[in-house]
Amino acid sequence: MVERIVEDNDIDELVLGIGSADASHSKHDPFTAGERIMMITKSLVDLDLVTYAVPIEDLERNSVWVSHVRSMSPDFDIAYSNNPLVIQLFEEAGVEVRQSPMFNREVLEGTEVRERMIKGENWQPLVPDAVAEVVDEIGGIERIQRVSETDGI
Amino acid sequence: MVERIVEDNDIDELVLGIGSADASHSKHDPFTAGERIMMITKSLVDLDLVTYAVPIEDLERNSVWVSHVRSMSPDFDIAYSNNPLVIQLFEEAGVEVRQSPMFNREVLEGTEVRERMIKGENWQPLVPDAVAEVVDEIGGIERIQRVSETDGI
Amino acid sequence: MVERIVEDNDIDELVLGIGSADASHSKHDPFTAGERIMMITKSLVDLDLVTYAVPIEDLERNSVWVSHVRSMSPDFDIAYSNNPLVIQLFEEAGVEVRQSPMFNREVLEGTEVRERMIKGENWQPLVPDAVAEVVDEIGGIERIQRVSETDGI
Amino acid sequence: MVERIVEDNDIDELVLGIGSADASHSKHDPFTAGERIMMITKSLVDLDLVTYAVPIEDLERNSVWVSHVRSMSPDFDIAYSNNPLVIQLFEEAGVEVRQSPMFNREVLEGTEVRERMIKGENWQPLVPDAVAEVVDEIGGIERIQRVSETDGI
Amino acid sequence: MVERIVEDNDIDELVLGIGSADASHSKHDPFTAGERIMMITKSLVDLDLVTYAVPIEDLERNSVWVSHVRSMSPDFDIAYSNNPLVIQLFEEAGVEVRQSPMFNREVLEGTEVRERMIKGENWQPLVPDAVAEVVDEIGGIERIQRVSETDGI
Amino acid sequence: MVERIVEDNDIDELVLGIGSADASHSKHDPFTAGERIMMITKSLVDLDLVTYAVPIEDLERNSVWVSHVRSMSPDFDIAYSNNPLVIQLFEEAGVEVRQSPMFNREVLEGTEVRERMIKGENWQPLVPDAVAEVVDEIGGIERIQRVSETDGI
Repeated sequence: MVERIVEDNDIDELVLGIGSADASHSKHDPFTAGERIMMITKSLVDLDLVTYAVPIEDLERNSVWVSHVRSMSPDFDIAYSNNPLVIQLFEEAGVEVRQSPMFNREVLEGTEVRERMIKGENWQPLVPDAVAEVVDEIGGIERIQRVSETDGI
Repeated sequence: MVERIVEDNDIDELVLGIGSADASHSKHDPFTAGERIMMITKSLVDLDLVTYAVPIEDLERNSVWVSHVRSMSPDFDIAYSNNPLVIQLFEEAGVEVRQSPMFNREVLEGTEVRERMIKGENWQPLVPDAVAEVVDEIGGIERIQRVSETDGI
Repeated sequence: MVERIVEDNDIDELVLGIGSADASHSKHDPFTAGERIMMITKSLVDLDLVTYAVPIEDLERNSVWVSHVRSMSPDFDIAYSNNPLVIQLFEEAGVEVRQSPMFNREVLEGTEVRERMIKGENWQPLVPDAVAEVVDEIGGIERIQRVSETDGI
Repeated sequence: MVERIVEDNDIDELVLGIGSADASHSKHDPFTAGERIMMITKSLVDLDLVTYAVPIEDLERNSVWVSHVRSMSPDFDIAYSNNPLVIQLFEEAGVEVRQSPMFNREVLEGTEVRERMIKGENWQPLVPDAVAEVVDEIGGIERIQRVSETDGI
Repeated sequence: MVERIVEDNDIDELVLGIGSADASHSKHDPFTAGERIMMITKSLVDLDLVTYAVPIEDLERNSVWVSHVRSMSPDFDIAYSNNPLVIQLFEEAGVEVRQSPMFNREVLEGTEVRERMIKGENWQPLVPDAVAEVVDEIGGIERIQRVSETDGI
Repeated sequence: MVERIVEDNDIDELVLGIGSADASHSKHDPFTAGERIMMITKSLVDLDLVTYAVPIEDLERNSVWVSHVRSMSPDFDIAYSNNPLVIQLFEEAGVEVRQSPMFNREVLEGTEVRERMIKGENWQPLVPDAVAEVVDEIGGIERIQRVSETDGI
């Protein structure tokens, strides 16, 4: 998706916001923000592009979310998202938003990847090689299998 | 409901607590506290009554909720609520609670209004004119339709 | 000050933001947000003006402060402040800011009023009558004298 | 369960962590941390054992949870838990974890006790006498019945 | 001080609130709540008294502080404190407060003990033996000396 | 300093933690985390080194600070710091800490740079060119001069 956005838009700098950066060890967010930074940065290392991977902690206040993102991120001109809430918030704040291109959405989306990890199915082909390596290094499969058995602490 | 409470109880000052004041742009709480203050104040402007519309942010701690409300609100003698948790908390703190009178509860309640807004149905007759005007001014229908498509950020 | 702003600017609606609304019982902020709402509303009751007194809790994040204020407040066009930080934040967010007119600043400012309250000196002439009444009703002088003896809990 | 852990493991000091200490007055956590401390301490008073009942407030960040527990608790060598997330977090932090012995899990677990309280069924035999006394003293049955009617404030 | 309170007042249960329980590794609060629980509990182990050592995290809101303390603590009838703010807050909430007896206040107070620890002077005689043992076990002197060199992170 | 650390230690990946990432628009922290990321990344762009600039928000709890840093950061083996508190916290958590080399500390430190900015003196020679450019672009001098006139909101 990043490759496609960059090609189509003559972009030379890209900020990747890592949402819910304070979450980890849950079924929905199994990995820490730091682990996700490693995954993303290693996956994009061959692109000829300045990238920033910026963790964005949840403030639980939609009304200040755009200001919060802006304060944590290098300056940006255009936002990419397919999340209707994110689009609404950026547009109310006067930020131009574009839809991200999506390929094989039903297979590549996070939900499918996580489900395969939990069931011990073949998840590696769905992610970049660099992501699979980080997941292995940190014992990510055992972690997501375990934490998905509970509702929290 | 406010008219009825005022008539029945010989009240000359009324505090309207605006709960979850930190929430907005969600299906359950589409409007900011400031927008809700405008709706309420404009709706009650013709009543001969001193009213305070006080935003109450969630502290996520039921045990301190009454103290929190009291610190944010002008002094009050009686609380009105039909929420069993709110009634329980006020009563444990020694505050007199009365049930609010309810008319046509199944139609006028927030859930019904929000559902109609989301489906593009006829919601205006369910709210005071002043509320409908504020919703229009802020583009409230587009907002609730969009944010109701997601689970959050 | 409010009278002067209203006269000079042909204003018919006024929002008064009550800062540090979560603070109370300290030397700097002896009164709760609710008590301050009462003081302000009662002081302005004779003005022919729609006023909103809106508590603004501290988020301890300057970068989202303007968004936070906007979400808690009815819509406003112009902000009045003499605080350089507040002016800077509003201007960065594109909000027009005007200086508040100040009379006898060195005597009427909060610091002087609080000092007199603590020392048992003549503070009543420095505040509107309605404020003095609220302070008396809530035992405000004893409170500020006591809490000014400590650094906190 | 405590008796069994103590017998089997030659333990002379025990820390009981009271999770979600900031929660109360909800269907899942009807009692305050202080009420739960009373229940636990009174139930264990006859054991020849130094016990600490330590409230642990939720930080909503799994990644710092173990550090948080350690900072609130006297030093401990072994953790007991059957919660897969808790086990995962302690193990990642290098803390030895053992499964708690469980008796009649399907009857004695919190869910069953709370359901009986809500339905007005016979819950007392499922808890130690000291717990039943505290629940009675604080009007716990009325509280849980009421708060289970709502989703929150 | 505890011995004196117990003797004078015919008390059989005592709750010791550990304030600023979320603070540690600072000049003012060098020890974690858990370490402080150990110090207090071990110091009082020979008293014939049921004691609870309850960590109280700061909420940074004086107006809800009493409710917060009550929710974290077993039920209590009388509060002991010499802090004017604490006395004011308890009295406004209708809780009876008594002054704690103080002996050699200028020597035994925390400030003096901490100063001696930082300067490498003779601090042990100012604290119960059990406290000195815990401080030694956790490397407390090196810690307070180091953290007192900075203003924070 | 970064050049020196990299040369001396055969390092090929570097994480730069941006502390107090939630602070901005104050005399001590005039710039947002995002602005600081830009300054750092642009300053290091010519180094042959994988660098991560990671914002670390304050949690105001020293006892969980190391876990928090670890969760936000890619994995690291050695920490560099000259802050005694940071050194103490990392060492208690078993992380190797090394002192950063410092050149001309009394001139290059943040305090000196900020003082010159506020007084309108010659600050540019004290910072990398890329930093000076970012400060200019964002109107940083006017901002720090203004916000240093106040104590906060």
